Amino acid sequence: MFDAQEQQAVVREDDQALQQPIIRQMVVQLRAMDSYGTYDTWSDARVLDPLVLTKERRKAIPVVGDPDETTISRVKAYYNALAQLVEGETGLLAVPVINITHEGFGRALILVGKLVALDKTLRDVHRFGFESLDALAGEAQKLVDKAVSLVNGNRAVAEL
Amino acid sequence: MFDAQEQQAVVREDDQALQQPIIRQMVVQLRAMDSYGTYDTWSDARVLDPLVLTKERRKAIPVVGDPDETTISRVKAYYNALAQLVEGETGLLAVPVINITHEGFGRALILVGKLVALDKTLRDVHRFGFESLDALAGEAQKLVDKAVSLVNGNRAVAEL
Repeated sequence: MFDAQEQQAVVREDDQALQQPIIRQMVVQLRAMDSYGTYDTWSDARVLDPLVLTKERRKAIPVVGDPDETTISRVKAYYNALAQLVEGETGLLAVPVINITHEGFGRALILVGKLVALDKTLRDVHRFGFESLDALAGEAQKLVDKAVSLVNGNRAVAEL
Repeated sequence: MFDAQEQQAVVREDDQALQQPIIRQMVVQLRAMDSYGTYDTWSDARVLDPLVLTKERRKAIPVVGDPDETTISRVKAYYNALAQLVEGETGLLAVPVINITHEGFGRALILVGKLVALDKTLRDVHRFGFESLDALAGEAQKLVDKAVSLVNGNRAVAEL
């Protein structure tokens, strides 16, 4: 748990990915969940750092485990960010709904009107993370594109 | 808490409402959540009894409170029952998704394909109950009718 390697930040302060809209929205959402102001003095790179699970970091996490509150709030921040992006591209209110059990299984939904624009099964939430910020941005973009496409293909229901 | 009046069963063994499909489905769902077999020797009336909150019973519950696991499972049983009825009338898989916070607020959804067939805000879950089985059946029918109507009006999305 106190291994120096895992404690070292992985996200560089000059990481180009930090400029991507998706990544900036993630920072907004993560800071929004920061009830105690812990992140006030932290850089964006530092706030995002725990989301990047390198092979070494991943190995340090037990295969079976219960997600803690911090990890769950990161998952929520992620889907909040996706919902914001869907809203931006469709002009319609997008509402994230996250269900996570104690064991780390669950479901992430993004609802637009009466349309389920995104419906993702969640597993191993205690190991929630991405190989890099670019990987995060890539997966996020795929999900947003899919959701926006669904909304545009079913505008009537999305506008209910 | 140990007032004899609250402990007395309110639902009569010969209550006509016990024959209604909605009420029978509620019993099915409540028994399905009975992990320890507590209900094995209980009549349907007895299983349903805690769902009926008379004025006296309601007064005995604090205005502010956290719902316990049993109450939450009753809420889940209710929406599972509604989902089953929606399935029966539409021929499509209907999935209930319940989100309840520790403080007893939340959301109950029934998803049919990519359609949000039901979306109900939950408040005061610790006081979840109905004035009578007939009242339960009446409210349930209203919700089911509304959901079925939405499904039939948006079959394409419901069949996604």
